[in-house]
Amino acid sequence: MGQHTVTSFDDELDHVDRLIRDMGDLAGSMVQGSTRALLNSDTALAQRVISDDAVMDAKQRELDDRAITLIAKRQPMAQDLRAVVGAIRMAADLERIGDLAKNIAKRVGAVGQSATPRGLSHSIEAMSGMVLGQVNGVVDRYVADDAEALMKLRADDEKIDVQYTAVFRELLTYMMEDPRNITACTHLLFCAKNLERIGDHVTNIAENAYFVMTGEQLPAQRPKLDETSMTVAAD
Amino acid sequence: MGQHTVTSFDDELDHVDRLIRDMGDLAGSMVQGSTRALLNSDTALAQRVISDDAVMDAKQRELDDRAITLIAKRQPMAQDLRAVVGAIRMAADLERIGDLAKNIAKRVGAVGQSATPRGLSHSIEAMSGMVLGQVNGVVDRYVADDAEALMKLRADDEKIDVQYTAVFRELLTYMMEDPRNITACTHLLFCAKNLERIGDHVTNIAENAYFVMTGEQLPAQRPKLDETSMTVAAD
Repeated sequence: MGQHTVTSFDDELDHVDRLIRDMGDLAGSMVQGSTRALLNSDTALAQRVISDDAVMDAKQRELDDRAITLIAKRQPMAQDLRAVVGAIRMAADLERIGDLAKNIAKRVGAVGQSATPRGLSHSIEAMSGMVLGQVNGVVDRYVADDAEALMKLRADDEKIDVQYTAVFRELLTYMMEDPRNITACTHLLFCAKNLERIGDHVTNIAENAYFVMTGEQLPAQRPKLDETSMTVAAD
Repeated sequence: MGQHTVTSFDDELDHVDRLIRDMGDLAGSMVQGSTRALLNSDTALAQRVISDDAVMDAKQRELDDRAITLIAKRQPMAQDLRAVVGAIRMAADLERIGDLAKNIAKRVGAVGQSATPRGLSHSIEAMSGMVLGQVNGVVDRYVADDAEALMKLRADDEKIDVQYTAVFRELLTYMMEDPRNITACTHLLFCAKNLERIGDHVTNIAENAYFVMTGEQLPAQRPKLDETSMTVAAD
């Protein structure tokens, strides 16, 4: 097989990787934008996040088409095949992160009509900051080919789950205090759940990226806990 | 190219299709089981649905591996490639349906501690019946190669969205009536949302199946509406 063919495969794979990076950047920007829009009742920013989702979808379609053509045309083996299939899977998770950010953005109107208490805003902001760090971190680690850092990053998802449980409890309390809070809190509940799910998608991406790099599954997979599914009222 | 090769490709594709049917059957059984467990506080049934999700995941992995190997080994063109890629995408949606059913099942314990009012149970049961019909229907139509019926089935997702909005409003009302309902209703809210999302995944499957059959996108894609993201309190 000539050097030309090999280079060309690498070029095509580079293009696929570039799409992953683009999608990762966009996912980070959408997560940041949607939470900022939510906490500041910024409907213009929310609208931008909603529009961004179409860009994300288009990028995923482009990546899928390129990756499938690459497999069919080049019949890559072992590590190369793993890289292409891994890219398809990571793109699917990034696209889902975009969907979830869009869903947060769509709730800005319904939540914004009532004031969110400061304590609750802080809790949601803290959660969103953790999630954003994970989204930006996972693509950076993949690009840097840093498998060790991916293991650590996956473990950090636990902190998001803990924070989500705290937000969930705060929201329940706040709803019980005053029925007029119920509608807004219900939407905030879905927003917090979306952030928690974004964390799970980051975990998936970390696992796929690790597999692409090492050919091995990440050891002792941590179950993606949502402890609130067992949570009942505090008292 | 000899007859043997052609037949063998078809055999392999048949196997992939059989996995889709298996996953479809399992998805239907999980959706039915999870809602039944929820409405009857049947924790044993809930546990079975939770276990079934591991079977679903294993089937998806098997399908993915087979499909990717098929593409790499056989380099299928046009319709054949479409069928294999379509199967990968349908399997991803079926797997997500399994996840959502599992999430409903996991909430049975938290909800079961309080009695769900009869009217609300009926609304959730009606919604679940619609969703189950869609899940079972979409795989049947795909197997029967009935593209026309898929168009109709996709349109029926709208009824689920309408029913979800009704359930959402009922839950808000019920929470406002008595704060002691808030915890259970919050979990029911997530269950209803999961059912609505299962409907969206059925829509995706219908679109993919239609594309596999016809090589064309379903016309005038209906946006997957969740009107409750804009819903505020009734009064």
